[in-house]
Amino acid sequence: MGRAPVIAIIGSGTGGEPAILNARELGRLIAGNAWVLISGGRDSGVMKAANQGAKEAGNGITIGILPEQHSAVSPNVDVAIVTDTGQARNNIIVLSADVTIACGVDGAGTASEVSLAIKNGKHVILLGVNEEAKKFFATIGREKVLVAETPSEAIEIAKTLLPKR
Amino acid sequence: MGRAPVIAIIGSGTGGEPAILNARELGRLIAGNAWVLISGGRDSGVMKAANQGAKEAGNGITIGILPEQHSAVSPNVDVAIVTDTGQARNNIIVLSADVTIACGVDGAGTASEVSLAIKNGKHVILLGVNEEAKKFFATIGREKVLVAETPSEAIEIAKTLLPKR
Amino acid sequence: MGRAPVIAIIGSGTGGEPAILNARELGRLIAGNAWVLISGGRDSGVMKAANQGAKEAGNGITIGILPEQHSAVSPNVDVAIVTDTGQARNNIIVLSADVTIACGVDGAGTASEVSLAIKNGKHVILLGVNEEAKKFFATIGREKVLVAETPSEAIEIAKTLLPKR
Amino acid sequence: MGRAPVIAIIGSGTGGEPAILNARELGRLIAGNAWVLISGGRDSGVMKAANQGAKEAGNGITIGILPEQHSAVSPNVDVAIVTDTGQARNNIIVLSADVTIACGVDGAGTASEVSLAIKNGKHVILLGVNEEAKKFFATIGREKVLVAETPSEAIEIAKTLLPKR
Repeated sequence: MGRAPVIAIIGSGTGGEPAILNARELGRLIAGNAWVLISGGRDSGVMKAANQGAKEAGNGITIGILPEQHSAVSPNVDVAIVTDTGQARNNIIVLSADVTIACGVDGAGTASEVSLAIKNGKHVILLGVNEEAKKFFATIGREKVLVAETPSEAIEIAKTLLPKR
Repeated sequence: MGRAPVIAIIGSGTGGEPAILNARELGRLIAGNAWVLISGGRDSGVMKAANQGAKEAGNGITIGILPEQHSAVSPNVDVAIVTDTGQARNNIIVLSADVTIACGVDGAGTASEVSLAIKNGKHVILLGVNEEAKKFFATIGREKVLVAETPSEAIEIAKTLLPKR
Repeated sequence: MGRAPVIAIIGSGTGGEPAILNARELGRLIAGNAWVLISGGRDSGVMKAANQGAKEAGNGITIGILPEQHSAVSPNVDVAIVTDTGQARNNIIVLSADVTIACGVDGAGTASEVSLAIKNGKHVILLGVNEEAKKFFATIGREKVLVAETPSEAIEIAKTLLPKR
Repeated sequence: MGRAPVIAIIGSGTGGEPAILNARELGRLIAGNAWVLISGGRDSGVMKAANQGAKEAGNGITIGILPEQHSAVSPNVDVAIVTDTGQARNNIIVLSADVTIACGVDGAGTASEVSLAIKNGKHVILLGVNEEAKKFFATIGREKVLVAETPSEAIEIAKTLLPKR
């Protein structure tokens, strides 16, 4: 057997509902499948919620890719990867994931991650994303960008995109 | 006296007019002011045109921030900075510039640069950008994002944003 | 409870015995303690042996921090972090570990990792290292550099250096 | 004509003589040849002295490759490249230079730079380096590592190593 599928959940560190609820449910579903969850690792917003969900639902591994040496780490992260590369760590998040799911694209950090995923030829699933973001990323990402309405739909789409390994 | 102002010109490596013409004219104006031009450094598209313009118009320094060790370098780049960090070099481009000017946002690489500039608190001027991109970046970037219709207008806006050094 | 201790094993991708045997035994001991093993992740030399040892001995998590998008991954790596930062990924390896253990310092890549660990204020344990390397790193690393004669001694030293978390 | 040769001067940010005097003289010689000087860019130690020397002697371009967004920049740096990658910026310094000259290897940061240069297949000239460092780097770097006794000898060696461009 090979490595487990790896899903990145990205989204704002300062956002509110519904992104937070979606991230928590995605975390549950990912861990329930015994997949690996990758996130930005910080103890706030979508990152915190995703890791919390994962630890409620199973024993899938949770990895946090941190921007700075002294970033506060989500308590539900199993392994903290300390990049000390600031926002350049966003590229490492999307490169390390088989599929990236964005819980909203409400801030510039998340927008950079969606863009970097597309640029690197990776698939991105947009969940709960506003119309401006949907239109923009459909234009630049075409078939690499998919849209989901619910966490479970996002996971179903992700399943179709996973590589054989 | 201190360091000269530094302007980054970003845009697609595969684009056509008007982005190419705008980039070349911006390069001329930047070098004419004896400012430093930073770009992604490769020998194609907006990067190539911007450096070409700069060397037609003055002796401002041109710096290329390259993604890979073996990237082909624009012949009008004075100094090639070899990052070997792939698309993460986009963060270095915008962090090193006082102001970033996007000649179109037609690809995911440029979208990541605009996003990273905003995330790092930097100003971005959008020149010749489509409506989807304008709306999206206005939403996530607010006062950090400005719009210009011509290269000379972009330079006039840039002048108002330069730090005292 | 918090995150498990994280130990990085570093060493040549092309080395022979005793480095390979030491790395495999270290992998066994780390996984036997249910610690996390971090390595450069490639499918050769010390990296391969360390991950192999870990999977023989327990279910500790193994993380590989890869330099390139298309690096061949050790089959015993649970999660591959794709940095696409070339040798700059060496800084991420040592920053992410509580303690780094070098199985020989026979190549320039390993020497850079030991140096970066010291520069970042981290402890390094040298195991099976030649006299030139021992003298050099004692000079520049002082109390941050410790020397072990066997894998089990290295692990005993590592235990005294682990942070409370 | 192509790009000018690029020489990196590396060394401690906290060192004393003779490293400081050597760095200043190297800076003079590099600028006198109208070559580009690359350094770590900070306003201290070898970095500061090298840039100061360059501006005393000519109009060669000086580039500083900074680790952090808020690093204090040497006043004699023409262009500051802000990497925000911490010590990983050391890899960018050596990759961007045709030849690297170390003014002493007294600290772990410089040791990492020499190691990364060798690992990337680049030449390093050691100037005023202690015996432990000379022996160690001769072992791991072989023909990539050369030794000079004076700044002018270092520059003569560098001339023999410059690529045709």
